Amino acid sequence: MNPIEAIAWVGDAETGHLRLLDQTRLPQQTSWLDCHRVDEVVDAIRRLSVRGAPAIGIAAAYGSVLGARAADPRDGFVRAREALAASRPTAVNLFWALERMMQATNRAHDDEFARAMLAEAKSIHDEDRRACRRIGELALELLRELTGDDLRLLTHCNAGALATGGIGTATAPMYLAREANLSIRVYADETRPLLQGARLTAWELGAAGIPVTLIADSAAASVLASGRVRAVITGADRIARNGDAANKIGTYPLAVLARRHRVPFVIAAPTSTIDLGTPSASEIPIEERASDELTNGFGATTAPAGVEAFTPAFDVTPADLIDAIVTERGVIRPVDETTMVRCVQA
Amino acid sequence: MNPIEAIAWVGDAETGHLRLLDQTRLPQQTSWLDCHRVDEVVDAIRRLSVRGAPAIGIAAAYGSVLGARAADPRDGFVRAREALAASRPTAVNLFWALERMMQATNRAHDDEFARAMLAEAKSIHDEDRRACRRIGELALELLRELTGDDLRLLTHCNAGALATGGIGTATAPMYLAREANLSIRVYADETRPLLQGARLTAWELGAAGIPVTLIADSAAASVLASGRVRAVITGADRIARNGDAANKIGTYPLAVLARRHRVPFVIAAPTSTIDLGTPSASEIPIEERASDELTNGFGATTAPAGVEAFTPAFDVTPADLIDAIVTERGVIRPVDETTMVRCVQA
Repeated sequence: MNPIEAIAWVGDAETGHLRLLDQTRLPQQTSWLDCHRVDEVVDAIRRLSVRGAPAIGIAAAYGSVLGARAADPRDGFVRAREALAASRPTAVNLFWALERMMQATNRAHDDEFARAMLAEAKSIHDEDRRACRRIGELALELLRELTGDDLRLLTHCNAGALATGGIGTATAPMYLAREANLSIRVYADETRPLLQGARLTAWELGAAGIPVTLIADSAAASVLASGRVRAVITGADRIARNGDAANKIGTYPLAVLARRHRVPFVIAAPTSTIDLGTPSASEIPIEERASDELTNGFGATTAPAGVEAFTPAFDVTPADLIDAIVTERGVIRPVDETTMVRCVQA
Repeated sequence: MNPIEAIAWVGDAETGHLRLLDQTRLPQQTSWLDCHRVDEVVDAIRRLSVRGAPAIGIAAAYGSVLGARAADPRDGFVRAREALAASRPTAVNLFWALERMMQATNRAHDDEFARAMLAEAKSIHDEDRRACRRIGELALELLRELTGDDLRLLTHCNAGALATGGIGTATAPMYLAREANLSIRVYADETRPLLQGARLTAWELGAAGIPVTLIADSAAASVLASGRVRAVITGADRIARNGDAANKIGTYPLAVLARRHRVPFVIAAPTSTIDLGTPSASEIPIEERASDELTNGFGATTAPAGVEAFTPAFDVTPADLIDAIVTERGVIRPVDETTMVRCVQA
């Protein structure tokens, strides 16, 4: 019943390494990347072998441990931190995890530096695992209330076990509903261009015995209009102080359509995804990906050679379209600055 | 400058055949299907080798000519008509063209039956070619007005030359803008699952020298929110008497988002797409396609084996979200029953 663990540290602080499930190969192949150097971790994050805001944070924390294996560990950490921070711009958990690691290095004695760093990375990982479970409990309670126990849900991209250190964020209430033998059905947007919904969410939910129906992203509007789902739940990559949320491209239109069809739109994310230092979404950098992710996906060329493409990886959902944000510290509802700050600083 | 002709009749009425560009192979290969029998035409329509509401009508008209090559030509036509009518349920142009062909057979003498049928099929083809051009003129005038001559447009799927007997419907004003050396930029949704936007629209517009930017369907919301486009224009597969329009899955969310961002949403379609016998969209049958179009596209398996999928080919845009419908007989604006009926019966 426990979903697959996509991130693991193998061995001790001095000689161990980071093992990542290579998510670019799913669902065809379950293969692992063994990262012994920082640049391998940076590359895994860039290539989306590890992805999902919480998982990126955890991978960066372990990556820092590898970086501290330089002749001068503190200097090695600083360089690792720079390289990891430059790997992806949108997910704030990356910067949050690196900040936590830096504080740990400041506290650590030189003679236990590596062990202290590994201990902090493992703490970040464990806390995320617990946060996922708590988010699941709170989100399940909320969704049961919002849907009148009719748990037909729509989700986008993968805010699942594969995106976190635990049972996911948006998927956490799904796993817990399954554990509690509640009736549930999940519609999963395939999530172009990289198909995280088809390749990852449908795969991990299916493996856990949760009924899942795959749809094209553009069919979500029809699914919402037809009454097939009673709530939408997604993760987030960064949530601004006012509640605006950046998440995978295609989240914003879902929120607009959910509102039109009076279907609640809920975000599930740990507080590490909330960036109180960013007043609103207009300050969140939106990563653009290489155009061949759209034009040459998965071994097939599906567009004319040389066509221009616009490939933002994320979009922004304004706070007023979000009915609730579920964190491990409580449910933010209504979604506004006061409630955001109160929750995060609780 | 003339776009590729995707449908042609080769030879005479008695021994000639229908030649179709195999659109399933684009943009990789430009290959042709030679259809000598009705079942080959039915198969080409089902497999989407020929697609687009007007093109389906034209192909069905030519297919009827092939059917009339039976020992009893009238009986052969009736059987051809049945088989062709069952090929795809949503595009009304198919039924309209078959009705036209039936009326032609009623008028035709036995000794010139084949020639009369071919003449009617060619009429349908020629009329569509002229309709496309007229739609282009009217749509370009309308779009120039709506956008203040800032022709940055968004389109979905392919309502292009490949979908018609002429320069397309939604693409017609784009070709004419290019002819007139007006500045234009087209954002093309790739249009999952079969990528008609990426494979067909980007291909034919690019070949004509029209600047085109390919986007994921789910990025259209960001494109609209950012002000990158000034109007949305699509085709339609069937328009009900009240103005509700069925078109490729993903059209309805575009209309919702266009309205939210105060971007005009325009449909371009010949009057043969308008079905006055269908009061509203709730009466339009929505075809569901095989799930492997979503899970196993273009040689790649992109979802777990056996996953359930929901794959509607079309969705419905309610009349109140459509700012105008451009037909060859005039612009329907406002989009309501009175204006619809007046235009079609003009």
